[in-house]
Amino acid sequence: MLNSILLDGLALAGAGIGAGVAALAAGLGIGRIGSSAVESIARQPSESGKIQTAMLIAAALIEGVALFGVVVCLLIALA
Amino acid sequence: MLNSILLDGLALAGAGIGAGVAALAAGLGIGRIGSSAVESIARQPSESGKIQTAMLIAAALIEGVALFGVVVCLLIALA
Amino acid sequence: MLNSILLDGLALAGAGIGAGVAALAAGLGIGRIGSSAVESIARQPSESGKIQTAMLIAAALIEGVALFGVVVCLLIALA
Amino acid sequence: MLNSILLDGLALAGAGIGAGVAALAAGLGIGRIGSSAVESIARQPSESGKIQTAMLIAAALIEGVALFGVVVCLLIALA
Amino acid sequence: MLNSILLDGLALAGAGIGAGVAALAAGLGIGRIGSSAVESIARQPSESGKIQTAMLIAAALIEGVALFGVVVCLLIALA
Repeated sequence: MLNSILLDGLALAGAGIGAGVAALAAGLGIGRIGSSAVESIARQPSESGKIQTAMLIAAALIEGVALFGVVVCLLIALA
Repeated sequence: MLNSILLDGLALAGAGIGAGVAALAAGLGIGRIGSSAVESIARQPSESGKIQTAMLIAAALIEGVALFGVVVCLLIALA
Repeated sequence: MLNSILLDGLALAGAGIGAGVAALAAGLGIGRIGSSAVESIARQPSESGKIQTAMLIAAALIEGVALFGVVVCLLIALA
Repeated sequence: MLNSILLDGLALAGAGIGAGVAALAAGLGIGRIGSSAVESIARQPSESGKIQTAMLIAAALIEGVALFGVVVCLLIALA
Repeated sequence: MLNSILLDGLALAGAGIGAGVAALAAGLGIGRIGSSAVESIARQPSESGKIQTAMLIAAALIEGVALFGVVVCLLIALA
């Protein structure tokens, strides 16, 4: 019983840190894409449609893995 | 009983650090996008609408994952 | 009793570090946006209104997540 | 029995952190590719099809490993 | 008996973190290759076939090692 709760603590600590790191993934990745996208639109406004499409495809791929990672950490936290 | 509280401590420490790292995700990511957006608006003021739209889409994707990560850490802290 | 206090210590340490990292998020992110904004206004003073609007939107998104992260750490510290 | 649960805790902590790092992989990698892709489309809009194809191939390779890594961490968490 | 289970926990923690780091390898490596590839296609669209072939060879080498690393971590987790 004693250790049982100790381990819950370890698991929750890992889940919290993991959720933070997964969010960091989206921040670093989508931040970079979005930054380049707005600069590219400023340089080639006539191509803003193509640029936004490419931005959304790449950002969605990152968003998917990052959300999945946060959900895994949520499952660990609720288990 | 003793260890029970020890583990709560570990869980709370992880939740606090995780919440901080998730916030860092938004800071680094949206910061980069916003910085590029204002510079792009200055260079192409006539395209400020398109630029702001792209900025908001990318920033919203980051905001969503980061807020989700902080909420997971809040759940861990309150559990 | 002893361990109880040890765990309070762990929780408080995590809350302190987390609050610091969350504040770092706002510092790095809004700092970058504000820096680019003032430079852009200096280059294009006639567009200062649009630039300030974009700056405020991006900064508010970061401020929201960072404040939320600090509040979570405050809850951990007071729990 | 006691230690069994301690070990569960260690395993869950590792799974949470691992899921976060795997997501970080997608963020850093696809973020870089997407950033270069939107800039390249702005420079050569007529080649946006070829550029997007190459972007998707490289991004899919990263996405595959990152998702696999998160799934392995999910398996550890559920085991 | 007790220690045996403790070691299982350590093994699982290592497997999870290892899977994440292996995925990070693919993210950093293929991300860099893909980024340069799309920029090169934009500069020399007529050579996009050769560029994509070279990108695939290099990316496949990274993918192979990263997948192998994740599989080793999966084997550790299932053992």
